[in-house]
Amino acid sequence: MRSFDCSELKSILDDRRVSTGESVRVLHSHDESFHAPVLPDVVVWPHTTEEVSRLVLWACRSKMPVTAWGAGTSLEGNPIPVQGGMVIDFNEMNKIIAVRPEDFQVDVQAGVIYKELNKTLAHDGLFFPPDPGAAATIGGMIGNNASGSRSVRYGATKDYIMRLTVVLPGGDMIAVGNRARKSSSGYNLAALFTGSEGTLGIVTEATLKLAGLPVNFMAVRGTFPAIRNATDTVYAIMRAGLLPAAMEFLDANVVQVLNADKGLALEENPTLLMEFSGYSEQGLREEMSFVEEICQANGALSLDKGIGPEERARLWEIRHYTYESIKRYHIGLSPLIMDVAVPLSRYTEMVEFSKKEVQDLKAYLFGHAGDGNIHVHVMDDPQDKKRWARVEKATHSIVMKALEFEGTSTGEHGIGIGKSRFMRQEHGESLLLMKRIKALLDPDNLLNPGKFFP
Amino acid sequence: MRSFDCSELKSILDDRRVSTGESVRVLHSHDESFHAPVLPDVVVWPHTTEEVSRLVLWACRSKMPVTAWGAGTSLEGNPIPVQGGMVIDFNEMNKIIAVRPEDFQVDVQAGVIYKELNKTLAHDGLFFPPDPGAAATIGGMIGNNASGSRSVRYGATKDYIMRLTVVLPGGDMIAVGNRARKSSSGYNLAALFTGSEGTLGIVTEATLKLAGLPVNFMAVRGTFPAIRNATDTVYAIMRAGLLPAAMEFLDANVVQVLNADKGLALEENPTLLMEFSGYSEQGLREEMSFVEEICQANGALSLDKGIGPEERARLWEIRHYTYESIKRYHIGLSPLIMDVAVPLSRYTEMVEFSKKEVQDLKAYLFGHAGDGNIHVHVMDDPQDKKRWARVEKATHSIVMKALEFEGTSTGEHGIGIGKSRFMRQEHGESLLLMKRIKALLDPDNLLNPGKFFP
Repeated sequence: MRSFDCSELKSILDDRRVSTGESVRVLHSHDESFHAPVLPDVVVWPHTTEEVSRLVLWACRSKMPVTAWGAGTSLEGNPIPVQGGMVIDFNEMNKIIAVRPEDFQVDVQAGVIYKELNKTLAHDGLFFPPDPGAAATIGGMIGNNASGSRSVRYGATKDYIMRLTVVLPGGDMIAVGNRARKSSSGYNLAALFTGSEGTLGIVTEATLKLAGLPVNFMAVRGTFPAIRNATDTVYAIMRAGLLPAAMEFLDANVVQVLNADKGLALEENPTLLMEFSGYSEQGLREEMSFVEEICQANGALSLDKGIGPEERARLWEIRHYTYESIKRYHIGLSPLIMDVAVPLSRYTEMVEFSKKEVQDLKAYLFGHAGDGNIHVHVMDDPQDKKRWARVEKATHSIVMKALEFEGTSTGEHGIGIGKSRFMRQEHGESLLLMKRIKALLDPDNLLNPGKFFP
Repeated sequence: MRSFDCSELKSILDDRRVSTGESVRVLHSHDESFHAPVLPDVVVWPHTTEEVSRLVLWACRSKMPVTAWGAGTSLEGNPIPVQGGMVIDFNEMNKIIAVRPEDFQVDVQAGVIYKELNKTLAHDGLFFPPDPGAAATIGGMIGNNASGSRSVRYGATKDYIMRLTVVLPGGDMIAVGNRARKSSSGYNLAALFTGSEGTLGIVTEATLKLAGLPVNFMAVRGTFPAIRNATDTVYAIMRAGLLPAAMEFLDANVVQVLNADKGLALEENPTLLMEFSGYSEQGLREEMSFVEEICQANGALSLDKGIGPEERARLWEIRHYTYESIKRYHIGLSPLIMDVAVPLSRYTEMVEFSKKEVQDLKAYLFGHAGDGNIHVHVMDDPQDKKRWARVEKATHSIVMKALEFEGTSTGEHGIGIGKSRFMRQEHGESLLLMKRIKALLDPDNLLNPGKFFP
């Protein structure tokens, strides 16, 4: 543990918002991954960008690492303060500064939880589409370029960033971007910070683009005899020019756990959950019969379907349980979740390859199929070196296969600790440029150090 | 003129592809703007990334500026070699490397003209949506983050970049990005190069995301008693959650020139051109009556409308003539085209303010209204210092107003020479970070020097 003068910090924030207490530090030592917890030296709760600036200035002068903290719901160890130092917790910096329905925009502080934001925005018929599922903060989502099941239609967080306020190492505050729907002015710095996992600067505020809430919904749940039938269906639906609002794959193991955990009686087969949204009910009915036709042509065993928000909720409910049900089904074990994404035409091969690689493990395959993104969720014991080495070996093969398919090691969970070992392979010569940019902005390597780069 | 050993260049490319001829240099001394031409020292036509790399290496060793050249259709002097040196012309590097309909992707060399690309892609029912109008190359569009009338629905070039091959100053070749539909891996370098106007690196190849060609179209042309009625209609249509595929504004002056130049008899009023596309004709009819209702509520004087590709072509034809008709109407004068974009809710104010600022000039207002983007097209004589100072004064007021509205000095034309004087005002402290990134990548300032930065 570092020694430092806490009274200096308490001259920046009031007493209550600076803590070196054991329990607080433990709470900020881990995310939802298996990665080993590391205690920070101190946790702080700023309320304004100016306070963050002064904290970062202080930390940089003290050569103390600084890690930004949203909700701690990351899956790759992204916010674990592996070199200790200061954790800046954004949970008290959670104001919705201004809703601008007239511009389809909202200004928020980084600590706002996106689900809370969407509750507020619903009053104006608007929403912020990326939906990672957990209670993530906007700041965390920006750091990670988060996405989720709606990204097949709406894109990832990066597609919704108009303007950011960023505190740079050293404490300088800058604003990047503007509020126009488009711009060709200057380097796209907002895109550089988005997805940089707090390694280049700390995002404190954002102007987000919003989408109008769809008027009507249609949902289909289909089950298939084999993985290939389900994943080929995904491909056929995307190729047909249909524009799903979500397109999720679950393998039979996932359905089996859902049945056990939730007392359901779903057919334990590879399953697709699909959602479509639109203006006219007639239009949705036309799309529905087209979707049915494609599912049947690909050998669907059963199709459950419906139109309207209630039907959508009924058909989709199970997807929201997935993560928690798997966890509860394996109390005492930790999750390692692979997150590769590949071009759509390689999705079937990718999923079948992954299934084979983990056939001797407690593994669950599900993912945002419409984006070519598959989560291979393995439950095991990181303390059991031999078993964990087996899990890591599977990760390695699966990532290498995704890269061979010109895909990515991580579709949405980010690099953090878990994927840094693949950065060289994935980015080749361009990794050097990333390192040069990191060194330019953060020469003392104080922002979220010890991860991201291999 | 620099002295250099041309034989060294001819050892990289064959004779025919290296030229110091006067006429060739003149052709590469200007774009379509009023900005003063400057002759390059030499023009080269590479065929491969490796050749570009060797050319850039040679130029950097010789401390010779390097400017990439697409079609020369820029409007802000973006490719004018203001410090002379080498112009790399991409017109012979125009291969469509691979169409991948199964992934909605295409791999191209940077010199491909986007209209040619779209002709090829149509065979697979696909297209690359950004449409700047001129015969732009993909490389130029990437450099400029080009957009156009379809961007209100489909976004700008940056939204279609999956992977780039880039030659860095010094000649290093890197690939950035991947072919998955989404990724949270590493810094978004592709976004950094897109819109950097060839000042950070030279893009030689790209993997582009594609969209499916719409099945059906609906178009409406409405005329209105005053600018405000037209621009308020834009706002109302966007707010209603309708998703136009294009939404263009033309002021009465533009219509008058079109009538004169093309022998048409259109009502010389503020005009909106709108396009909608979709799957079901019934859905489009529903949208059409909604659109009509909104236009009428905003005082529309006339509405012409139709469904299907022919009707769309008929109603839209005039938009494609605009630029050329204005030019032909003022032979001997040069265009200065302002290109501000503002949040939608400020669009009416922005257009009315602009109209007032140029009321004593030969000025035409038109633009991508659905994006809050307005072009104020002034025809005048840059040699007449007093008159041109008047034009520049209008530019200044209009840009300052756009920035006051938290918009941008350029929605799609880029910075080039013309907008560099606004960079400080627009980007504030973040301009310093742009300069640091420029200095990191191009310490000798050899890539497209003398513009972009103030």
